[in-house]
Amino acid sequence: MNFLKTALLSLSILISIPFYSQNDEEVMKEIYNLSLTKGKSYDWLNYLSNQIGSRLSGSLGAEKAVAWGKEELDKLGLDKVWLQPVMVPKWVRGAKEYAFIESEPGKTTTVNICALGGSVATPALGIKANVVEVHNFEELAALGKENIEGKIVFFNRPMQADLIHTFEAYGGCVNQRGQGAVEAAKYGAVAVVVRSMNLRLDDLPHTGAMNYGDTSVENRIPAAAISTNDAELLSTMLNLDKNIKFYFKQNCKQLSDVQSYNVIGEITGSEFPKQYMVVGGHLDSWDLGDGSHDDGAGIVQSMEVLRLIKETGIKPKHSIRVVLFMNEENGLRGGKKYAEEAKQKGENHVFALESDSGGFTPRGFSFDCDEANYNQALTWQYLFKPYLIHYFEKGGSGADIGPLKNDKIVLAGLRPDSQRYFDYHHASNDTFDAINKRELELGAATMTSLMYLMDKYGVK
Amino acid sequence: MNFLKTALLSLSILISIPFYSQNDEEVMKEIYNLSLTKGKSYDWLNYLSNQIGSRLSGSLGAEKAVAWGKEELDKLGLDKVWLQPVMVPKWVRGAKEYAFIESEPGKTTTVNICALGGSVATPALGIKANVVEVHNFEELAALGKENIEGKIVFFNRPMQADLIHTFEAYGGCVNQRGQGAVEAAKYGAVAVVVRSMNLRLDDLPHTGAMNYGDTSVENRIPAAAISTNDAELLSTMLNLDKNIKFYFKQNCKQLSDVQSYNVIGEITGSEFPKQYMVVGGHLDSWDLGDGSHDDGAGIVQSMEVLRLIKETGIKPKHSIRVVLFMNEENGLRGGKKYAEEAKQKGENHVFALESDSGGFTPRGFSFDCDEANYNQALTWQYLFKPYLIHYFEKGGSGADIGPLKNDKIVLAGLRPDSQRYFDYHHASNDTFDAINKRELELGAATMTSLMYLMDKYGVK
Repeated sequence: MNFLKTALLSLSILISIPFYSQNDEEVMKEIYNLSLTKGKSYDWLNYLSNQIGSRLSGSLGAEKAVAWGKEELDKLGLDKVWLQPVMVPKWVRGAKEYAFIESEPGKTTTVNICALGGSVATPALGIKANVVEVHNFEELAALGKENIEGKIVFFNRPMQADLIHTFEAYGGCVNQRGQGAVEAAKYGAVAVVVRSMNLRLDDLPHTGAMNYGDTSVENRIPAAAISTNDAELLSTMLNLDKNIKFYFKQNCKQLSDVQSYNVIGEITGSEFPKQYMVVGGHLDSWDLGDGSHDDGAGIVQSMEVLRLIKETGIKPKHSIRVVLFMNEENGLRGGKKYAEEAKQKGENHVFALESDSGGFTPRGFSFDCDEANYNQALTWQYLFKPYLIHYFEKGGSGADIGPLKNDKIVLAGLRPDSQRYFDYHHASNDTFDAINKRELELGAATMTSLMYLMDKYGVK
Repeated sequence: MNFLKTALLSLSILISIPFYSQNDEEVMKEIYNLSLTKGKSYDWLNYLSNQIGSRLSGSLGAEKAVAWGKEELDKLGLDKVWLQPVMVPKWVRGAKEYAFIESEPGKTTTVNICALGGSVATPALGIKANVVEVHNFEELAALGKENIEGKIVFFNRPMQADLIHTFEAYGGCVNQRGQGAVEAAKYGAVAVVVRSMNLRLDDLPHTGAMNYGDTSVENRIPAAAISTNDAELLSTMLNLDKNIKFYFKQNCKQLSDVQSYNVIGEITGSEFPKQYMVVGGHLDSWDLGDGSHDDGAGIVQSMEVLRLIKETGIKPKHSIRVVLFMNEENGLRGGKKYAEEAKQKGENHVFALESDSGGFTPRGFSFDCDEANYNQALTWQYLFKPYLIHYFEKGGSGADIGPLKNDKIVLAGLRPDSQRYFDYHHASNDTFDAINKRELELGAATMTSLMYLMDKYGVK
């Protein structure tokens, strides 16, 4: 290096450019560069997935995840880090489920099932009964008690493959899982088996929340998910012979609520410290995989937002919080608690952003807000174009930030590519090897960029 | 079903709606629906990948792929299906390569390498020599003969992680693979070892074409790729001790050219039968994986374009051809032959579309054409919006259709999401399990839609 170059370099170090005079293009470039070349999200997720693993509310994994989240946020040099106590439900799976189709006495075919979250167990020796296949609650009602009593109801409506947004396909099916048991119990069914919410044909059962609504304890019937391949098999076998029987045994249990926590970190705002902008995902996961996509990805991306803000030297005007919500999967207690306490304390939340749709290539955001703020977001689209972020639509945001909703707040959800999401969702293959480092990091940078712009230009 | 419904249904079957009175939205919806619910691309690719497997030009696999391609096109009821003879190079890998780093005599660490396509073998007992690490040809030249002669040159410039388009990062590195051996030989190097073109750190070496240019046969030095993990290791060990040695043995060989074929199918146009629109990919692949992404995906998507056109009842005005090009990977002989023969016969090619960037979620197209045709394509963007296809940019198209280029033709390339492409590219993990059915099918529908619009509205 010659003398002139050395001198110029020293000079450039001495003259630090005031941050907000940099243009948005430069700041965003720096954010993406840092995320892709010196990011922490992938290493964090590696630890969360492979060293802690699954973290269903109330489990040891969830407890470890809380401690880990706090420890990592403590290292970031934020202005505040704390735990917000919240009581959460504790449901445990117990021993692995077992199921078979009996085509005639002694002739059985084992199939892959898992208990749905919140379900009661079967009797100790399991349940064996004839099966009635239905595709929706109307068919169920039409069949009535005379055709259903004493039988297992098999809900087999597949996710619609021709819908481009896979979450829409999920939305069109998930009532089978959530309310199937309640509906079938009305007609005297002894159990329900639900086709897994999976667009792919494979052998993995996908769990997920179900609930019994007002059904009295003695009328609650066990609910299980069956893999898509086995759902096809069961349907075929039923078509060949209505008299086949289905046997299953599951050993799950609802225990008493236990103490847990949301983990919160804050960079206090320089101009509007009493106006809060939140970014978050949920720290709990289902128990079958390690929850890398749902929602480990959202957790580490949200943590990365605050880390990148500090790393790039952004001094936010508003107070920016990362919230690692507990218990999204089976209760939403963390999200509700956070909103409740914010209300009690009169904290003015102006913006909240959630990532809970997997760690895939980010495509954009959906916004739940008024026209003025949506229109402002649209003016930023050109800034995102170099990063192939094109999707700016009105729509939902995220479950955990939902309870913050009011007339003024801007809610947004990161929208990654959704094609592969339900291949992994709530199943044993939602593991770290299903994560691509770059896709995860692009998501973190995309979220950080939106947070930077919202903070800089403010809510309308 | 009541009487009225039955009557209406019969009526709707009788009155068939003339095709071109349907609006574009409806036609495209039908195309996407068919691809996603009754598509053939995934089953085709399953066969090509798992029953035929790798298909390097001149191999038995390539020969089988030609026969399979013709057989499948024959089943589609096209107007013409034929084989276009083309002589192709035949390079064979021979026995698996072997390599180690020797930190001191007798103390060795095995590393993962593979011969680059087109490379000569090492001597029968392999090559062992000191190593010089460089990152580009300038460093190489600066080191000069005195530092390089008798040594192995290790090209270790990584793909740039901060580039959003991974193909750009690939473009910035691939000269190490293509010309590294020629450049290093100028300074008396005995061999080159090149960091794999992979953004991920893993243990897989990635092959790919290299060439010796004008280098005389006796001056050709062997060239191998080393996995990214092992490139990092080698670099670290060199930093600790410049005197370490690298050993490798490879057994590849260039044989005489052999006869092969492009496989071509045509739907003859109803109005402009002498104007041709081509869709294609390349049928050959590298030998390490089964070429599912590169370019099995492009092959089955291109076949699906013609199948979907027939299936939806589109009667194209122009003659639409699918071309399964041979020998893209190490010679481009198929692409050149097709263009050459088209020229000889005076066939007027007005449009060509290639898919050769993997079977990932489609994002859009790049266009290599004049302003008028690019602007026409932009007017179709709104039609693609429901399918999250947003990328309409000027740029390259595809290697195989490149030789068709002239002042008038519109060339286009499908642009899928590129983040994961180089995780698999030319490596042993480019296999069928890395393909997502929906992503593949969305690509096929996206290509079919563009072909439909180009045919309907014509080239400007």
